[in-house]
Amino acid sequence: MNIPVVVYILGRVMQVEGAFMLLPAFVGLLYKETAGLSFLLVGGIEFLAGLLIILKKPENKSFFAKEGFVTVSLSWILLAIIGALPYVLNGDIPHYLDALFETVSGFTTTGASILGSVEALNQCSKFWRCFSNWIGGMGVLVFVLSILPLAGAQNIYLMKAESPGPTVGKLVPKVKSTAANLYKIYCGMTLIEVVLLLLGGLDGFSAITMSFATAGTGGFGILNSSCLEYSPYVQVVITIFMILFAVNFSVYYLLLTKRFRQAFGCEEMRWFFAIIIVAVIAITLNVWDMFDGVGEAVRHVAFTVGSLMTSTGFSTVDYNMWPEFSKTILLMLMFVGACAGSTGGGMKVSRMVIYLKSVKKMIEQYIHPRSIKIVKFEGKQVEHEVVRGINMFLITYIFLFAVSVLLISFDNFGFTTNFSAVAATINNTGPGLEMVGPSGNYAMFSPLSKMVLAFDMLAGRLEIFPLLLLFAPTTYKR
Amino acid sequence: MNIPVVVYILGRVMQVEGAFMLLPAFVGLLYKETAGLSFLLVGGIEFLAGLLIILKKPENKSFFAKEGFVTVSLSWILLAIIGALPYVLNGDIPHYLDALFETVSGFTTTGASILGSVEALNQCSKFWRCFSNWIGGMGVLVFVLSILPLAGAQNIYLMKAESPGPTVGKLVPKVKSTAANLYKIYCGMTLIEVVLLLLGGLDGFSAITMSFATAGTGGFGILNSSCLEYSPYVQVVITIFMILFAVNFSVYYLLLTKRFRQAFGCEEMRWFFAIIIVAVIAITLNVWDMFDGVGEAVRHVAFTVGSLMTSTGFSTVDYNMWPEFSKTILLMLMFVGACAGSTGGGMKVSRMVIYLKSVKKMIEQYIHPRSIKIVKFEGKQVEHEVVRGINMFLITYIFLFAVSVLLISFDNFGFTTNFSAVAATINNTGPGLEMVGPSGNYAMFSPLSKMVLAFDMLAGRLEIFPLLLLFAPTTYKR
Repeated sequence: MNIPVVVYILGRVMQVEGAFMLLPAFVGLLYKETAGLSFLLVGGIEFLAGLLIILKKPENKSFFAKEGFVTVSLSWILLAIIGALPYVLNGDIPHYLDALFETVSGFTTTGASILGSVEALNQCSKFWRCFSNWIGGMGVLVFVLSILPLAGAQNIYLMKAESPGPTVGKLVPKVKSTAANLYKIYCGMTLIEVVLLLLGGLDGFSAITMSFATAGTGGFGILNSSCLEYSPYVQVVITIFMILFAVNFSVYYLLLTKRFRQAFGCEEMRWFFAIIIVAVIAITLNVWDMFDGVGEAVRHVAFTVGSLMTSTGFSTVDYNMWPEFSKTILLMLMFVGACAGSTGGGMKVSRMVIYLKSVKKMIEQYIHPRSIKIVKFEGKQVEHEVVRGINMFLITYIFLFAVSVLLISFDNFGFTTNFSAVAATINNTGPGLEMVGPSGNYAMFSPLSKMVLAFDMLAGRLEIFPLLLLFAPTTYKR
Repeated sequence: MNIPVVVYILGRVMQVEGAFMLLPAFVGLLYKETAGLSFLLVGGIEFLAGLLIILKKPENKSFFAKEGFVTVSLSWILLAIIGALPYVLNGDIPHYLDALFETVSGFTTTGASILGSVEALNQCSKFWRCFSNWIGGMGVLVFVLSILPLAGAQNIYLMKAESPGPTVGKLVPKVKSTAANLYKIYCGMTLIEVVLLLLGGLDGFSAITMSFATAGTGGFGILNSSCLEYSPYVQVVITIFMILFAVNFSVYYLLLTKRFRQAFGCEEMRWFFAIIIVAVIAITLNVWDMFDGVGEAVRHVAFTVGSLMTSTGFSTVDYNMWPEFSKTILLMLMFVGACAGSTGGGMKVSRMVIYLKSVKKMIEQYIHPRSIKIVKFEGKQVEHEVVRGINMFLITYIFLFAVSVLLISFDNFGFTTNFSAVAATINNTGPGLEMVGPSGNYAMFSPLSKMVLAFDMLAGRLEIFPLLLLFAPTTYKR
């Protein structure tokens, strides 16, 4: 393990987070909140600490998958540990563990909250919550890669460890340019949403924070009722953008470079939209009599399906009141999740499609043992390595899931609450069913359960392996 | 597809089931029940029909994996379709679909029931329920193989398709002798249990039927309260035999042939016992204050753990009343299941162990990419083919599970009921949680849900692939 280079990158990450905290500090200034000082203080100290750390440049630049995973895991843990401090200092979230849960939830774009009332927070804290969704959405190391000159090999390993999905698709040959392009698209789309929300009558603060939370598919809102009180226009804009931010960003790059045929041919995106359409139709048929007219039903169902499948977690209705069939579909969508290479969570559409295709292949091979079949995805053969990787992902995912449900069952809440709480955190969705449904929150869990669920959020965002490797003894063996 | 040979074997299976039905008919005679005639009638006609079918010997004997899977699937479906008829004819279960559910549950050794009162049945019907557990436990085709002369190649494919577990271990080189040895051990152990239960004061009918249901790890009892009313001695005997019948039968063969070191070295068995011990300790610590003393607590916990992990499904207490932590462990045990090559269900201990070992290997390979690691189980390298097979098993298992939960959610019962109902049927356990818990039953489900759950029982018993292949269009392509 090349520790100096890991520490060096952590220093860079601290500088970035420290600088980012100036924004909520500025919001505090605008609203004349003394609470804003907590961000200035923590951010300032963090930036300086980061500066001290990077003074010592690592001599040995060797950097491989192992270092990549460890760096990314430690970066995210560090981001959360420091990012939680301002909430405690300004009194918005008095208990540190709660603040940590909220911050992990923010950065991992989960949106699970321990807050009874979001509206009681200072404006600067509300801003930081939503901004953490935005930072975590595209990834902080991708950000570091896009602005800072790091040596060659480490780039791709960092990118691989932080980016969601079974494979990492580089947009352009250079990692740095890829990262920069991703952030350009990300910023551009966020800006468009801000403008559209302003046109819908939202004030500047609401438009910006809600756009941040949508862009990261995070789901931290600024109202206790999430999106219930917004106008239908605003709800529709948010629905569309939740879905857009959950599409593989390479599609947008292809569109920007005018390769329309390739863009619209993206197999994962087609499956993603197909699943959304089928789910909206099935649920609408199941719940339309609960609304005033089909139009309203479709609007709320599309919002809810978009919100849960993209792992955002906003809500306009309490879907806990819906029939079991609809709730079961919603739960399943949480597992499927968004497209790889987007800001969304879940297991990813591409994994699901490859799973199904492998089963089909396996059945055909049983019947015709001498035939040679390959699994194709996005028009290319899926490499054996990728298939093995996603199989291992599934197994570790299930074990982590089961152990988590078992550990939080100590709190003696019902199975539906526990199961959906783990599903909503490991898939970075946010709200689940029953006690952790859209009208509930995670405050009632014990400190142990909150730690477990926070771990699940990180494991879900980093797709398990980086975190597992961080805790595997073999990582530290020579 | 070589249809004549498939039909020929189905004829043999019908003969066997027809002959088996003479036993409940005889029980009816003993108890002077006219209901017994239904078994004589159905069994007699079935035997004759089978006889007619086998008159035409197939000329072409070619028989491969495809034919094996299709034959086994069709045999089990046929067994259930015909085995359900006597219940309807004698009026014990008036609706055919309910009778079919009950019969599938019996043969697959699930033990899920639609009956409100078992005690209201005729003795001959009670006997047939428990006997179907016994027949299904070791498998009807294994039985056919053990007594009938079939041509060479088909034997191993039939055995492979019907035997549970990731690999098929032949005890001796010849399939016919393997099958015969398995049935000898099975009968011997059943007989020992009968004797021990008689010594415990049970009457002959109870001792035989309860031994049948234990041996098949089926769980169809003859009292409405399952095993609650039996003496502690009887409960302990049943606990021990539930666990013994869930051990890989090759262990007993090794013991009989005096290869003790090999027998006690069986890795799967060691894991199986280790999991049982850990589960009993964990649950006892969680529930001991609900019982009069630790001894009683351990007895009931060991019974419940044994019952659910071996997929039997008997009960001495309503574990629905236990804390969530204990219930979550029980639910997890249902998934783990018994050893491969036993009469028990679930995903099988060996699969779980290989999953965990593969993950460990994968993590080590991430860290040390150039090292070559192999997964070892039972002292031998696990072949690539086996790993691929169990990965595919996991994926199809999860998809089938999810689709089943979705389909039965139409009935609008709670998620815990639905989830545990599918878990209890696909793992061939029987009772689940909440409405399908030990004090409930499956009567309230709609016909669609009953069909879905019956399919899951068959899929669980035959480990999914044979049934999937039966419905895959590619099976019938030339």
